[in-house]
Amino acid sequence: MKIVGFEQNQQLRLGVVEGDQVIDLQAVDPKIPADLGDVLARSGGDLKAIADVAKGAPASARVPLAGIQYALPVANPGKIVCLGLNYLEHAKEGGHQKPTAPSIFMRCTTSLVPHQQPIIRPLASETLDYECELLIVIGKKAKHLTMQNAYSCIAGYSCFNDGSIRQFQRRTAQWDMGKNFDKTGGFGPWFVSADELPEGAIGLKIETRLNGQVLQSDNTANMIFPVAETLVDLTQAMTLMPGDVVVMGTPSGVGHARKPPLWMKDGDTCEIEIEGIGILSNPIKDEKKA
Amino acid sequence: MKIVGFEQNQQLRLGVVEGDQVIDLQAVDPKIPADLGDVLARSGGDLKAIADVAKGAPASARVPLAGIQYALPVANPGKIVCLGLNYLEHAKEGGHQKPTAPSIFMRCTTSLVPHQQPIIRPLASETLDYECELLIVIGKKAKHLTMQNAYSCIAGYSCFNDGSIRQFQRRTAQWDMGKNFDKTGGFGPWFVSADELPEGAIGLKIETRLNGQVLQSDNTANMIFPVAETLVDLTQAMTLMPGDVVVMGTPSGVGHARKPPLWMKDGDTCEIEIEGIGILSNPIKDEKKA
Repeated sequence: MKIVGFEQNQQLRLGVVEGDQVIDLQAVDPKIPADLGDVLARSGGDLKAIADVAKGAPASARVPLAGIQYALPVANPGKIVCLGLNYLEHAKEGGHQKPTAPSIFMRCTTSLVPHQQPIIRPLASETLDYECELLIVIGKKAKHLTMQNAYSCIAGYSCFNDGSIRQFQRRTAQWDMGKNFDKTGGFGPWFVSADELPEGAIGLKIETRLNGQVLQSDNTANMIFPVAETLVDLTQAMTLMPGDVVVMGTPSGVGHARKPPLWMKDGDTCEIEIEGIGILSNPIKDEKKA
Repeated sequence: MKIVGFEQNQQLRLGVVEGDQVIDLQAVDPKIPADLGDVLARSGGDLKAIADVAKGAPASARVPLAGIQYALPVANPGKIVCLGLNYLEHAKEGGHQKPTAPSIFMRCTTSLVPHQQPIIRPLASETLDYECELLIVIGKKAKHLTMQNAYSCIAGYSCFNDGSIRQFQRRTAQWDMGKNFDKTGGFGPWFVSADELPEGAIGLKIETRLNGQVLQSDNTANMIFPVAETLVDLTQAMTLMPGDVVVMGTPSGVGHARKPPLWMKDGDTCEIEIEGIGILSNPIKDEKKA
């Protein structure tokens, strides 16, 4: 099942994607929360009730997919945990050794931007870089996961563009400043439930295209710390909650490692495609002077 | 004005502290949100309406401060932005040069713990360290602040214990893993509105005591990047929202820089005191094996 966030008359809604149509869940039952995180929290991660609502939806609840204004698949994730240096070739292109533990950093919700909305190149720096990443949406509360039960907390997946302002990412040893500029993190186009993908989303082609040119192309099988290992690692520290997201790092080919460096600029279009999930597409726009 | 979060019959509430009593705001007007972040978002950061409610509160709305079960002053901050290495002596004790830019990292809400609730020493590591810090609560939306208007977004202040699992903070160059263990970040005891403190909370004594022994003692005047400079810096990147918190870094005297290192352990009590705000006190407890 594909679940999409969208906006209608400035109201958040949730829909199930079927072909070129969206079943507007709030049009069927206004009590369904418009934030997928809330849906997951109430259901303990079980999406069967949503599937049933979609199955019984009247024709009047269907809207054309082409016309919707996309919102974030999870409107307000409780936390956004990200991995760096999780593909060996990407670690090497940044001058790093093969890591022995995942590099964990965090993003905040103000840094996110939905499918088709502009990623903003800020006034502060032109060093805006793309990073295609697999994103995990947590379905149920999890602590101290093991390799045997790690997948049980996963509700599904999405695409992420971990847009980074390299100048600020590297001004100190801590990356978070460069990873949290407003509207730099593309998230979408939608959520795909875990049952539609291989366990741990292993073996999926992942790609970045800027204005149609392929700049990153790899496979999620090449992660140094795959999904299960990562969830086991994280949950020795933190409780993952429904609606939390974990972002799995990017392969090689980023703009800052190119000679000369390649930065995204106003007018560009950046696409992130993951096999079995879809294409996240964002135009790039300069931040306007106040 | 001092505003305290507390819990009654598993329901979150907000109160105004007056001497040894708390005026239960929801007992006066059930429509007042129990999360200070929501109060600030609705009022644009203005707390006059809350002050008026407190002023007109009947005696029946007063409860003894001594009896309350404290909750977080802001129940669900949208983001928790933290500074590292913001006092020169602390940077030096960790082997760092004087920084030329603030080191920014982030915490998530599952890492927080209110006044009087236990800070948890995790199963994963015994290297649990304390860090006394000044915490800023944002009152209104802010982007591109200047040195002239930086203070305008501040609603008030609190104490923070930036509890850190040093082994995980230092296993890679990124600190966030060691800064986000469940229930390691003490936040409280309450919120103090900005009008009760010097502008930018400059010149306040700040101290950590472990089982009564003073381990950190400094003054907020000694920050390398003071409050105004920090807010200007952060808001070139990110929009600060009502209820967001910014945590201003710790002075020297932390446990990991001592010889031998000093780690907090089950049965300890850690107090963070900031002049004009109050004392945040947390017992330390070992994580229980499942």
